[in-house]
Amino acid sequence: MGIVYEQRNLTVDGAMTVLEGARRKASEMGVAVCLAVTDQSGTLLAFARMDGAPRLSIQLAQDKAYTVTAFGLPTSAWYPMLEKVPSLLHGIVKADRLMVFPGGVPVTLDGVPVGAVGVSGGTVEEDDEIATAGAAALVAA
Amino acid sequence: MGIVYEQRNLTVDGAMTVLEGARRKASEMGVAVCLAVTDQSGTLLAFARMDGAPRLSIQLAQDKAYTVTAFGLPTSAWYPMLEKVPSLLHGIVKADRLMVFPGGVPVTLDGVPVGAVGVSGGTVEEDDEIATAGAAALVAA
Amino acid sequence: MGIVYEQRNLTVDGAMTVLEGARRKASEMGVAVCLAVTDQSGTLLAFARMDGAPRLSIQLAQDKAYTVTAFGLPTSAWYPMLEKVPSLLHGIVKADRLMVFPGGVPVTLDGVPVGAVGVSGGTVEEDDEIATAGAAALVAA
Amino acid sequence: MGIVYEQRNLTVDGAMTVLEGARRKASEMGVAVCLAVTDQSGTLLAFARMDGAPRLSIQLAQDKAYTVTAFGLPTSAWYPMLEKVPSLLHGIVKADRLMVFPGGVPVTLDGVPVGAVGVSGGTVEEDDEIATAGAAALVAA
Repeated sequence: MGIVYEQRNLTVDGAMTVLEGARRKASEMGVAVCLAVTDQSGTLLAFARMDGAPRLSIQLAQDKAYTVTAFGLPTSAWYPMLEKVPSLLHGIVKADRLMVFPGGVPVTLDGVPVGAVGVSGGTVEEDDEIATAGAAALVAA
Repeated sequence: MGIVYEQRNLTVDGAMTVLEGARRKASEMGVAVCLAVTDQSGTLLAFARMDGAPRLSIQLAQDKAYTVTAFGLPTSAWYPMLEKVPSLLHGIVKADRLMVFPGGVPVTLDGVPVGAVGVSGGTVEEDDEIATAGAAALVAA
Repeated sequence: MGIVYEQRNLTVDGAMTVLEGARRKASEMGVAVCLAVTDQSGTLLAFARMDGAPRLSIQLAQDKAYTVTAFGLPTSAWYPMLEKVPSLLHGIVKADRLMVFPGGVPVTLDGVPVGAVGVSGGTVEEDDEIATAGAAALVAA
Repeated sequence: MGIVYEQRNLTVDGAMTVLEGARRKASEMGVAVCLAVTDQSGTLLAFARMDGAPRLSIQLAQDKAYTVTAFGLPTSAWYPMLEKVPSLLHGIVKADRLMVFPGGVPVTLDGVPVGAVGVSGGTVEEDDEIATAGAAALVAA
């Protein structure tokens, strides 16, 4: 790859687009969640805690987005891998910021990952649906 | 043992030999990993994050090498011991820096441990194969 | 800036070029230091602890590089700013990973920052000179 | 230095000799302190908390010994260096485990460092005197 490469990354405007797309979805569903959007390096770009969302979710949402960028996978992909490798299942979950349940989703543009969105506060299915709606909002922008 | 003893330890040149041996193997296998080499006290001597390797693996690779020096065992030896003792399996995994899945391997010279190499980012089998190649590079040097 | 932008970043090969350039300089000067190279997001790419370098410098070198990418300034620029604002001098220094003394230097290519190098273990002047030599090695590559 | 080197290190018997030497001195002086002895890598080998010694000193004593091995200097050497470099004085004190006041002393044998002893709980002068007595006990053994 030579000594440098070009990485495409979300701007704050892009991040706000994702955040608002996810927040709209959460409002429609009637679920109060925390929403975090990071760039491709896992750095926080935008965050919102909806009224009544769990305070513990402030960190969980950020860690979900971080985990996505750290491995390039949605957080929902982790458990199906882990349950086949018991040593990993028992041994890796404690890793700092690693989130192995749904609610963290890559944000892509033209198929290229540019960041991630993490959602926490609803059921894991709700969190994942809201995060997915956030990622979709960027493509539609 | 008296009041002092002599301990053989990797130098930074030895550590770079291990690092490059492991990196060559990972490149051949087409796997992007983080690589960490420590001396016999678990102190970090050399590290590289290959392009595209998971960011969470930066710490995991270091913790795998640390665990090897802390117990004198490859990290792959842990789970087979733990699964026979459920209380230990559930209770010890949280111990700071303990890694109980493959990818951490002792670095020995003439059968004497002088340090460790930890690899993270591929499957546990890939990580272990890459770490083993790194350790072998020192013997071949 | 629209919703995404392009960021230029060091590869691991670029990082090793910086690391070796800094290590050569430190060897010439006869100073044992820890050397850390990060990409533009502050993510660790390459590290070496020269024989006899202080162990506390393992983290300090990484934090110096991180601080550079976090603010876009060499770490030597901090103290002259802080000493004019006592509240800041006493209050901001504890910020996680912030390093306010010399030894952290941006790595640039064609005037564009692509990462950072942090050095710790010598005097602050030595650390800064070694880091600067590392950054220069990339331009010469 | 090649790929490996030999490092001389305290055994637990050596560490207990240092610990008892320091404890005898503290008892003679009528000061209740915490005493920690590490090997040359900063790894804890022996510890005692004398009756009535401050609980916070449990960690401070260990950190003093650790700091000695991390830099190869008694902790009393730090402040005279720091006061001449304001950026360092303000910026480095927060470093994890760094202790910049007296009470940590190298343990040497035939002029070679083999570990360290850290003492906390008295005045800095008392702590340093007790630590020095501990180190001397090894030479006398």
